[in-house]
Amino acid sequence: MTVAAVDDTCPVGRAASVMGDRWSLLIVRDVMDGLHRFGDLQRNLGVARNILTDRLKRLVDAGVLTTEPVAGGSAYQQYVLTPKGAQLFPLIVALRQWGEQHLFAVDEPHSVLVDTATGEVIAPMHATNRQGEVLQASGTAVQR
Amino acid sequence: MTVAAVDDTCPVGRAASVMGDRWSLLIVRDVMDGLHRFGDLQRNLGVARNILTDRLKRLVDAGVLTTEPVAGGSAYQQYVLTPKGAQLFPLIVALRQWGEQHLFAVDEPHSVLVDTATGEVIAPMHATNRQGEVLQASGTAVQR
Repeated sequence: MTVAAVDDTCPVGRAASVMGDRWSLLIVRDVMDGLHRFGDLQRNLGVARNILTDRLKRLVDAGVLTTEPVAGGSAYQQYVLTPKGAQLFPLIVALRQWGEQHLFAVDEPHSVLVDTATGEVIAPMHATNRQGEVLQASGTAVQR
Repeated sequence: MTVAAVDDTCPVGRAASVMGDRWSLLIVRDVMDGLHRFGDLQRNLGVARNILTDRLKRLVDAGVLTTEPVAGGSAYQQYVLTPKGAQLFPLIVALRQWGEQHLFAVDEPHSVLVDTATGEVIAPMHATNRQGEVLQASGTAVQR
């Protein structure tokens, strides 16, 4: 890529303002993984209640999560992804695949993400051009 | 996806520990865009010097950036991506495309990322299975 400024017209900058936070990324990961209740998220993340409360509020305000009543007439609310939040899947996959490739020793075990229809590990995700050719940053440019 | 825990075997968790930070994401974006000097990054990001110093040190320690002397015998160092850092390109593209799709009004201008070989905007990036079929989170599962 070439030439980007921290102006408000950069989609990376706006997205980083919403999702450039470790806890927010982990919350979205966990909700995608099927955790929906405050207590479940808190236990799984090992995060302080006040931080989790803050991040959930931010994600709801940003339209990434929404709340809905828990089934069965309980007074509890649960957190679910909006369509906008569900479309963070490529971002979570990009984090995962970079982590798998660079943050584990060769013989160190880690979880993998499989296609439930085939049971196979998903494919490496790449940025491509319209012809399907894989692109690196050096082959691209930011155009205002 | 189903069932992930904040154990140390989750590649998303490890990657979020390194890159789950707004400034770190923006620094990597800017270095991909061709900014390499401390002063240029500081001006472009409008970030406090101490924060920029901290984040650059973290990114160097994490093996995402490295320093090299500026050409021409200057005493200055510049920051460049390591191969590990360059492979964050899909992550930056995922942020960009989510931002483009969800954080701008329909008629609001934003920069676009083009393939320099064709001049065309790059393709939407998707997670896929080995057969090339697009996957959503709901069609996948985390396997330990």
